[in-house]
Amino acid sequence: MSRFEGYLNDLRYPAEPSKLYEPIGYSLRQSGKRLRPVLLLLACEAFGSDASRVMPAAAAVEVFHNFTLLHDDIMDNAAVRRGAPSVFAKWGQNVAILSGDAMIISAYQQLAKLPAERQPWVLERFNRMALEVCEGQQYDMDFETRDTVTVEEYMQMIGLKTAALLSGSLAIGAYIAGASMSECEQLERFGMALGQAFQLQDDWLDSYGDEQLGKKIGGDILEGKKTYLMVTAYRRATPDEQRVLRETSTNVTLADTEKIAAVKTIYDRYDIPDVTQHQINIRFKEACGFIPGSRFESLRDYAASLIGRNR
Amino acid sequence: MSRFEGYLNDLRYPAEPSKLYEPIGYSLRQSGKRLRPVLLLLACEAFGSDASRVMPAAAAVEVFHNFTLLHDDIMDNAAVRRGAPSVFAKWGQNVAILSGDAMIISAYQQLAKLPAERQPWVLERFNRMALEVCEGQQYDMDFETRDTVTVEEYMQMIGLKTAALLSGSLAIGAYIAGASMSECEQLERFGMALGQAFQLQDDWLDSYGDEQLGKKIGGDILEGKKTYLMVTAYRRATPDEQRVLRETSTNVTLADTEKIAAVKTIYDRYDIPDVTQHQINIRFKEACGFIPGSRFESLRDYAASLIGRNR
Repeated sequence: MSRFEGYLNDLRYPAEPSKLYEPIGYSLRQSGKRLRPVLLLLACEAFGSDASRVMPAAAAVEVFHNFTLLHDDIMDNAAVRRGAPSVFAKWGQNVAILSGDAMIISAYQQLAKLPAERQPWVLERFNRMALEVCEGQQYDMDFETRDTVTVEEYMQMIGLKTAALLSGSLAIGAYIAGASMSECEQLERFGMALGQAFQLQDDWLDSYGDEQLGKKIGGDILEGKKTYLMVTAYRRATPDEQRVLRETSTNVTLADTEKIAAVKTIYDRYDIPDVTQHQINIRFKEACGFIPGSRFESLRDYAASLIGRNR
Repeated sequence: MSRFEGYLNDLRYPAEPSKLYEPIGYSLRQSGKRLRPVLLLLACEAFGSDASRVMPAAAAVEVFHNFTLLHDDIMDNAAVRRGAPSVFAKWGQNVAILSGDAMIISAYQQLAKLPAERQPWVLERFNRMALEVCEGQQYDMDFETRDTVTVEEYMQMIGLKTAALLSGSLAIGAYIAGASMSECEQLERFGMALGQAFQLQDDWLDSYGDEQLGKKIGGDILEGKKTYLMVTAYRRATPDEQRVLRETSTNVTLADTEKIAAVKTIYDRYDIPDVTQHQINIRFKEACGFIPGSRFESLRDYAASLIGRNR
């Protein structure tokens, strides 16, 4: 991955207009896990191709992912991202909108660096993935104003918002390395199940993670977010408990710690943490089952480390 | 152009999530002049190619242009667009952000429909054009908070914000039809000069257009926008007049009609309307001079009709 960080670091954006380009570098330097480029590079290597061939594609999915963070932070009114001020908080809304737009285009600039004969397929696959991410974000926003969301609807939403980008990254990496269509589809199924497991883990961590690790616990509960925990608990709860789940986040008489405790009491009553972990296990095993064989060993290892599971 | 309208009409977006896709159809139906696709199609025809080959590219530039309107309306807080509620006003900011994002991607979906061997060049050219438009928008926003802007800076800004999209559309249409690189560059220069003339005409119309045509006069003056008229007048004005030009739009003691009259009095004192018309003439003639010969006759005719000039 140090080669990828080097590639990303070497991307040169113009100096002016600074408010358009500075936030792009700022955003890309707030190093996350680089999950999507890692998957893309591992998929490429699984088919024996050298990573240097796909560096631009790996950069494209990372830049695109960072674009979604810029615009999501505006929509969520989020001032902090990866422990630092979000672009939205640091430069304001208009800059975050326009820099985000420039990042989408910049992702396509990377695709234009791929070998010409690979571009048409990659362009189409990238477009589909990108639109799926937008669809997922819209469903997520739609859910905010709805009273109830089913578990099935929730899984479909995260399939688009989170997993589609993993799926697409894997397929693109494999395709450029010369994989067949059926091999690409195998990896897409792996990415879909892994992405859902990853999002469920994220939901679980937000309520049951380790405070010692500097993670603030309970943010989703305070925002009244319809996470996997919430929609699963809601389905099992009594009408009185459902009212608590629906209304706690906006209850002005409760302190934050009381709100978190009230909701987690219901979660615990229905074993929601265990139910969630069990579901993560199922998805993770399903994911690995889609890509058996030694060729994909490092992808399965990476998935295991990501989800914190042994294979 | 009816074939293009037909092509655009036949574009099918998914029904769900409706808040993501409905604004796209809404925006594309608010029919404007279709300036960019017209130029792209005329450039294609100038090289003897059938328009059907470039329909997806024509749709791409139109969809991209409409994306810029969605996001610009958020940044400008604009409630009305082409006489109807803007997407921002009708659906709210978050929908306008996300639908706009989907429109960028949708433009690239059109490019993916072009003949495979033409895609790499077009993708790169489209990316450059798209980033230039973002740069222009950023400079335009930067100008708002500055005391003074030079005429040269203004011309550079509209070269990016307005003219780059015309230039790029022309080059892409010609390239797909088989034009040489030097022919593409010829058309780019034409598009650059035409785009600047077009924007100056737009600036002139906002202050001196025909109220009878339903156009509300003076919007730019009331917003204190740094138009060609404003930056040109500012350079010639005395310090006292400069203060009037700088401060009128935010003067709370003046009625709108008084503000417009105060600024136009200074414009008229320095013959700014004539200076602007003269500059439009120069740019228009320069534009036509870049593309002599019978091959480009319909492009020159279209430019003349657009700028309201005889050739």
